[in-house]
Amino acid sequence: MTEPSGDLAGERADAARNRARLLEAAAWLVAERGAEHVTMREVAQVAGVGKGTLFRRFGDRNGLLLALVDDVEAEFYQAYTFGLPPLGPGAPASDRLIAFGYALLERVSDPTDLGPALGRQVPTDRRRTSNYGRAFHLHVTSLLREAGVVGDHTMLAHALLAFVDLETIDHLRNDDQVITERLKATWADLVRRVTGAADC
Amino acid sequence: MTEPSGDLAGERADAARNRARLLEAAAWLVAERGAEHVTMREVAQVAGVGKGTLFRRFGDRNGLLLALVDDVEAEFYQAYTFGLPPLGPGAPASDRLIAFGYALLERVSDPTDLGPALGRQVPTDRRRTSNYGRAFHLHVTSLLREAGVVGDHTMLAHALLAFVDLETIDHLRNDDQVITERLKATWADLVRRVTGAADC
Repeated sequence: MTEPSGDLAGERADAARNRARLLEAAAWLVAERGAEHVTMREVAQVAGVGKGTLFRRFGDRNGLLLALVDDVEAEFYQAYTFGLPPLGPGAPASDRLIAFGYALLERVSDPTDLGPALGRQVPTDRRRTSNYGRAFHLHVTSLLREAGVVGDHTMLAHALLAFVDLETIDHLRNDDQVITERLKATWADLVRRVTGAADC
Repeated sequence: MTEPSGDLAGERADAARNRARLLEAAAWLVAERGAEHVTMREVAQVAGVGKGTLFRRFGDRNGLLLALVDDVEAEFYQAYTFGLPPLGPGAPASDRLIAFGYALLERVSDPTDLGPALGRQVPTDRRRTSNYGRAFHLHVTSLLREAGVVGDHTMLAHALLAFVDLETIDHLRNDDQVITERLKATWADLVRRVTGAADC
């Protein structure tokens, strides 16, 4: 590969490197001590980057955590968009829907998954601003359409996703002691009922 | 009616009167200026009751707000348990489920309804501790059973209620500008799919 030359290209490369370093430092600190205990000062320190640069690039702590979520989600996005079936393309739409919910439920149950761990830190902003929330919704909407469901796909997707929402599932797991297998069975049942894939 | 006599009865009557006064004062203040601006000091002042009594009775501000929610919810509970059909008994279970969701959605859309207004103030505690959340869930669970749904009624009730949850609906109304009529149509569609009342 040829690198672009000149001062401007150098500055751009520096900026990209700083961004990657800051996100890596933040991810490490979050995994190490939990998102709620990570400060901007520490992130800058661990990354070896000035605190001014950190704030300039991410706005504030929430901005940094959301960028980190987006980074973590990119990999999951790849898996459900281009990966192997039944999560990725190649399986019937209702099977893909079921696999998608299973994957979400497994992620929520996994304490080392940074996506949910960080989502818990920004509960309101998460719904409002996160790109991945929008991506989940687009994905479910298009699978409902592909499954031949006759109805308001946009809204049915919201209804399905409300059940596997981080806060709903945390509540059911922590306060009602519902195990992951039962959550998955409910999701599959729900998808079959909504897509008409159930016997009827 | 005969009143119980003696000092103890008098004390009990005082306590009940104080409780009613404090809740009335709190309801008035919440309606007047929004739950987030109501302080314990003001509630005691408006009720003409000592601040010590207020704290002894309700624990803290959250405790007071939750008691107020329960008070407000008692009326709604009467309506869906003993009131007129289709919300109350007498209509087919799937119609009652639809009417129940409609009522919840109308309440969330009504800024003067104290239930949702107060629920917004205690988002996490609301799920964990509120009696009315449990009552909603019991109601939906028993209607699913009555509708002859074959499946995990407890979990399907959670899945349905996740869609009409205060935070989900606030998000859809405020951030996605979804109107109440569309939310109601989605609820009815969802109930029909889950209960098998849809044509299939």
